[in-house]
Amino acid sequence: MVQHGGSGVLASVQDDFPRWYQDVLEKAQLADNGPVRGTMVIRPYAYAIWEGMQADVDARIKRTGAENVYLPLFIPESYLEREAEHVEGFSPELAVVTHAGGKELTEPVVVRPTSETVFGALMAKWVQSHRDLPMLLNQWANVVRWELRPRLFLRTTEFLWQEGHTAHATAADAAAYARRIHLEVYRDFLQDTLAIPVLVGVKSPRERFAGAVNTMTCEAMMGDGKALQMATSHELGQNFARAFDIGYTDASGTVQSCWTTSWGSSTRMMGGLIMSHGDQAGLRVPPRIAPIQAVVVAVKDDERTASAASAVADELSEAGVRVRLDVRGTPGFGRRIVEWELKGVPLRIEVGPRDLDAQQVTLARRHVMGKTTVPLDRLSAAIPPLLEEMQSEMLAQARERLAARTTDVETVAEAIAAASTGFARIPYAALGETGEDELAAKAVTVRCLQTEDGGLPAGADQDGLVAIVARSY
Amino acid sequence: MVQHGGSGVLASVQDDFPRWYQDVLEKAQLADNGPVRGTMVIRPYAYAIWEGMQADVDARIKRTGAENVYLPLFIPESYLEREAEHVEGFSPELAVVTHAGGKELTEPVVVRPTSETVFGALMAKWVQSHRDLPMLLNQWANVVRWELRPRLFLRTTEFLWQEGHTAHATAADAAAYARRIHLEVYRDFLQDTLAIPVLVGVKSPRERFAGAVNTMTCEAMMGDGKALQMATSHELGQNFARAFDIGYTDASGTVQSCWTTSWGSSTRMMGGLIMSHGDQAGLRVPPRIAPIQAVVVAVKDDERTASAASAVADELSEAGVRVRLDVRGTPGFGRRIVEWELKGVPLRIEVGPRDLDAQQVTLARRHVMGKTTVPLDRLSAAIPPLLEEMQSEMLAQARERLAARTTDVETVAEAIAAASTGFARIPYAALGETGEDELAAKAVTVRCLQTEDGGLPAGADQDGLVAIVARSY
Ligand SMILES: [Zn+2]
Ligand SMILES: [Zn+2]
Repeated sequence: MVQHGGSGVLASVQDDFPRWYQDVLEKAQLADNGPVRGTMVIRPYAYAIWEGMQADVDARIKRTGAENVYLPLFIPESYLEREAEHVEGFSPELAVVTHAGGKELTEPVVVRPTSETVFGALMAKWVQSHRDLPMLLNQWANVVRWELRPRLFLRTTEFLWQEGHTAHATAADAAAYARRIHLEVYRDFLQDTLAIPVLVGVKSPRERFAGAVNTMTCEAMMGDGKALQMATSHELGQNFARAFDIGYTDASGTVQSCWTTSWGSSTRMMGGLIMSHGDQAGLRVPPRIAPIQAVVVAVKDDERTASAASAVADELSEAGVRVRLDVRGTPGFGRRIVEWELKGVPLRIEVGPRDLDAQQVTLARRHVMGKTTVPLDRLSAAIPPLLEEMQSEMLAQARERLAARTTDVETVAEAIAAASTGFARIPYAALGETGEDELAAKAVTVRCLQTEDGGLPAGADQDGLVAIVARSY
Repeated sequence: MVQHGGSGVLASVQDDFPRWYQDVLEKAQLADNGPVRGTMVIRPYAYAIWEGMQADVDARIKRTGAENVYLPLFIPESYLEREAEHVEGFSPELAVVTHAGGKELTEPVVVRPTSETVFGALMAKWVQSHRDLPMLLNQWANVVRWELRPRLFLRTTEFLWQEGHTAHATAADAAAYARRIHLEVYRDFLQDTLAIPVLVGVKSPRERFAGAVNTMTCEAMMGDGKALQMATSHELGQNFARAFDIGYTDASGTVQSCWTTSWGSSTRMMGGLIMSHGDQAGLRVPPRIAPIQAVVVAVKDDERTASAASAVADELSEAGVRVRLDVRGTPGFGRRIVEWELKGVPLRIEVGPRDLDAQQVTLARRHVMGKTTVPLDRLSAAIPPLLEEMQSEMLAQARERLAARTTDVETVAEAIAAASTGFARIPYAALGETGEDELAAKAVTVRCLQTEDGGLPAGADQDGLVAIVARSY
């Protein structure tokens, strides 16, 4: 049964998480279904959050030395495997253009499901000498994978992402670079900017990306205890380079095969943000990523209140806070508050006649739904550190849930039981291949393998690893 | 006949401009053809310039109050007109997906040639009351228009662009907003950031965007005297709103049709940048948009020179200059200089033993190919203002060419003659419809209509307008 709690406009986050998620997308005006099944319209507020994610991740990627490129949307059929003569022979996830220029194409073209094959072909051309290495490339683009059971931000036919592809002279250099991307770009971004604690680990051979010799992942726990894979980084060994003939002439003049990596993150992180931090009142956006960090709301529709609210907004804006001023006469104060709570704006600053008489304003912190007051003359000194404090508290809250809903277990049966409400930790040796099969039968998977102390191992064959198992999106 | 001059690696910019353009794209490593005919690979250096353009234009767009959204790549066939039963009945510029999910689609979907129709459908849903107006939306995305005669950056099957769509309560508000976008976003960006002087004017009815009541354009002169349309802004009257049923309830409760605008700019601006500023040695990038504003080149491959070059680079980087350090041992100094000139890096700072003995470095300014020296202790004070000075000089150079190759004429025959080397200015009244036909027969078009003093008129029916006519890309 669907219960409405809190604001009364969302399904119960406790009892019907999937419907609560749909409700948040709609009521907070984050996303809509597109006119073609499985596609998505990203509305301004959500797109502003995505722009913040993109800018932050992009800056981190560039800090590692990688450069951005743009490769074509269309891929020739010859780049992709096909099992039959007709276009139905393509993998079902592919969308195929058969007609263009007003006629049937001699060779159909595929809408990129990833640009992997084009990166392969170009890197084979661009890498010649050891002086061209490492070649560190990244792309931000839309990709298409036909979805029969779409869910906005989590699984859509078209989504936005970045995919990095790099070539290196040695296995060690490739491994070190992939690890750096995984920890300094993905893990640090997710934890420091999105306030989402992630488990970093490697995939078991069963869950590993096809063609990879090692896949690293960042796994996060959603509000319902299920896991969401937030980003992955792959060491491809020499497999990819051999398939695409990416080689270089070393200092001694010998031709060598490169070692390559690939790594990606997508608009799926928006889904993760909503499902990690959302509550019964709607979305909660961590201050560092929030397009609006503070909304200044005039409590009363008169000139004195409006001009005081406007002065507060100006002052905070000058102090570097991303501020929105809300002095609308309609809808009424109560409904405007529900709107800002739905959108998860971290701080609401209420400016009303009584507070003004007392030379203060009221602060409502979204992450705890708590109210305090602050003197007008302390505003620009108090707010920026308060936002940073809220950021830390949101990360701490998420860490607490992760810890509380993670159970140490010894047997497969216990792992399956624990996965009904959260994550289970089980010695990888106690699981084995048959254990993974038993989990799979209950829709539970090994999300990642970690060292005993929660660290990122070098690979899945390291001794003494612990498996994190869970249900997942 | 192709002559090689300057660096000796490019076709003659004087004698074979089209081949010179292709050579620059290749030798400066800007772009490649994609594997599917008409598509394009944007390489790191060009993509970094595009990122700069995008960031600058985006900030200007946001300053006008518009917000970004993302709409789907795929458009249902029902959104687009089709003249026959089979998919060949679609306009030849469209690429049509007929197969996906491993089977033939019941309804084929079109790859967006623009998101106009989707914006129309969404705005009809999102605009309800006068309180929702103005609705100011923009999108950065890839679009596809099948090209049989592609030319990289100028006409490609897939290109990157932004398209803005806005809805307003009144004709005056729509007109004022479109004009603001045209002048404060496009004109100012092109002139202030790209150092490209543009003629702002309105299109004649013949050249106007279908469905628009007024089309504003920014026209620039390329190195060969031909015009390139750099950006356009349209007032759509109530045509678009009526077609898509975009209406609002006014304060008195009456339903009114909106007034809409649309406006766009694309990776075509990259082509404009190359063809406006390029010379026999390659590309010339204005300092404000340059991903690398100064390259510090070690003249000799020894430790003293390399460490001095590195110190110079660090100092300039701290002074806010975008610097690249080039202390490569190979290729040799001469070839490295050719590379940086090809890429059009504004300032080359040469650090060599003799200069170091004299406590100075040598500056080579790309825009005039002139060399000077500057004392080491004046570097961080001297370089930032020098870059700004170079920016102004590049704009002045381009303005001079525009003026020198623009001729005032009185007759159509004179206009055609003048258009063989540049632009002609002719009273619009002297041209008339038959005049435009005569021009068209010689592949010359009215690029825009301006007021006598070069201003942007309110519309094409204003009295006393002057037509700018030229050959164009
Ligand atoms: Zn056909
Ligand atoms: Zn078929």
